[in-house]
Amino acid sequence: MRNLDEQTITQAVLARNAGTEDRRLHEIMTSLVQHLHAFARETQLTEQEWEKGIEFLTAVGQICTPTRQEFILLSDTLGLSTLVTAQNHKKPAGCTEATVFGPFHVADAPQFDLGANISSGLPGTPWFVKGKVQSADGAPIPHAKIEVWQADDAGFYDVQKPGLEAHHGRAILQANAEGHYQFRTIVPDCYPIPHDGPVGKMLETLNRHPWRPAHLHFMITAPGFQRLVTHVFREGGDYLDSDAVFGVRSSLIAEWVSHESGLDPYGNQIDSQYYTLEFDFILHHA
Amino acid sequence: MRNLDEQTITQAVLARNAGTEDRRLHEIMTSLVQHLHAFARETQLTEQEWEKGIEFLTAVGQICTPTRQEFILLSDTLGLSTLVTAQNHKKPAGCTEATVFGPFHVADAPQFDLGANISSGLPGTPWFVKGKVQSADGAPIPHAKIEVWQADDAGFYDVQKPGLEAHHGRAILQANAEGHYQFRTIVPDCYPIPHDGPVGKMLETLNRHPWRPAHLHFMITAPGFQRLVTHVFREGGDYLDSDAVFGVRSSLIAEWVSHESGLDPYGNQIDSQYYTLEFDFILHHA
Ligand SMILES: [Fe+2]
Ligand SMILES: [Fe+2]
Repeated sequence: MRNLDEQTITQAVLARNAGTEDRRLHEIMTSLVQHLHAFARETQLTEQEWEKGIEFLTAVGQICTPTRQEFILLSDTLGLSTLVTAQNHKKPAGCTEATVFGPFHVADAPQFDLGANISSGLPGTPWFVKGKVQSADGAPIPHAKIEVWQADDAGFYDVQKPGLEAHHGRAILQANAEGHYQFRTIVPDCYPIPHDGPVGKMLETLNRHPWRPAHLHFMITAPGFQRLVTHVFREGGDYLDSDAVFGVRSSLIAEWVSHESGLDPYGNQIDSQYYTLEFDFILHHA
Repeated sequence: MRNLDEQTITQAVLARNAGTEDRRLHEIMTSLVQHLHAFARETQLTEQEWEKGIEFLTAVGQICTPTRQEFILLSDTLGLSTLVTAQNHKKPAGCTEATVFGPFHVADAPQFDLGANISSGLPGTPWFVKGKVQSADGAPIPHAKIEVWQADDAGFYDVQKPGLEAHHGRAILQANAEGHYQFRTIVPDCYPIPHDGPVGKMLETLNRHPWRPAHLHFMITAPGFQRLVTHVFREGGDYLDSDAVFGVRSSLIAEWVSHESGLDPYGNQIDSQYYTLEFDFILHHA
């Protein structure tokens, strides 16, 4: 434990961690230390570069607030989130694929009845969304809990807008006994992930754009089924092939159908263009 | 760039980073992404574990202040700091070895004349420290800038003590024309690294103690020579073989010589036990 050099340090740290009682934690720390050290050796990391790394991680942590999660952004932009999502949700045949959680979910979204307008007064093009929640064998899953969150038509989430409370474009709904859900909202635009912080600066230095294709977030839970965290992307939209967080899956791209003014799906007259989306979710047994 | 899985995501991220103009940054990011992904694949990291990791890193960042650097603590306790120090300072024959910087350095320490008492009124056992700064060929290096920082006799740095300004047990001195330096201070005790935060919690979970053996920090700079960041450890002290941050090097352990009361090295009567240390620093040409 004295005179450790860049080779012997790794075994020394592993030896020091050997007394970890939680075996899973021990396994994770062993892999983490080995890869962290291998990274530093492989790159022959200098002290200045190490210092820059410390400063960067500190800035990432310091900009976090209850409504801004810069470490999730970092994980997303480095592809770690997609990797973790993918290896934990190998899609069983026919089940809806999962994608990244993203940094904009908030707990305690407002509850709405089926059919409600969940946009809480956000201006934008009306959008009528509906579908079914079912299991792989086609049987409806009754009363699934459906959380929805979305950006507005300028690409911002409520939590990004000063003075706006965190319940615009967010909802918790419950599918009916036949597994059906529906709600009204506005069409979200594609948006850049928050890029006024250290992760934005990183993307800039890497010559990468911060944009995500337009999407609607869903988190669906039902007893006896695995939680599904996913998006529905807009077919034909921008950035589908260069999502800043690597989240696009073909099976999650759907047509957001444009309609002229007329009778909306609820039978009410609507004097502007509006959109509809029908998307069914197929959950995997727990 | 669609339908990425836990294997294909790595190449996708590297491809996205391919436009990085800074070639060194590109090299570092490539290695970082590969090791980060390999770690997550190797451990089959779950979403819950990923979430815990995000929470941990966020907590590490949030507890940082201008006088508390928890990411350096993390790097120190994971052995990364020692690795980076070692690979950047392969000790040329005869030169003083470097060790970790640690989280307690502050800029703008007060300047003192040679021979001054730098403890700024900290109570403790008097300690008289002196030595030479020279090059590998034995020639004195005149007027080297010597920064010193240390814990008090209870093991605390000034920045850890509420209400105490950051200039107790810190000094900037200048060696004389013959390379000699000397100052008076108090004997620092061994100490636990700050363990009331997330890194302390991590050590606890890993069943590791947070203690460091007693030491005095030095940072020495002189034109034409490489900056030397190092410690002098106390021979025979506790924790020399289990330093929480893996920083002990045999060549940096010296006797802190105990003396009964009598005439101190400056020729003044001293009515208590006191210590002396003589340590020479040999700098490496830049
Ligand atoms: Fe989003
Ligand atoms: Fe220290």
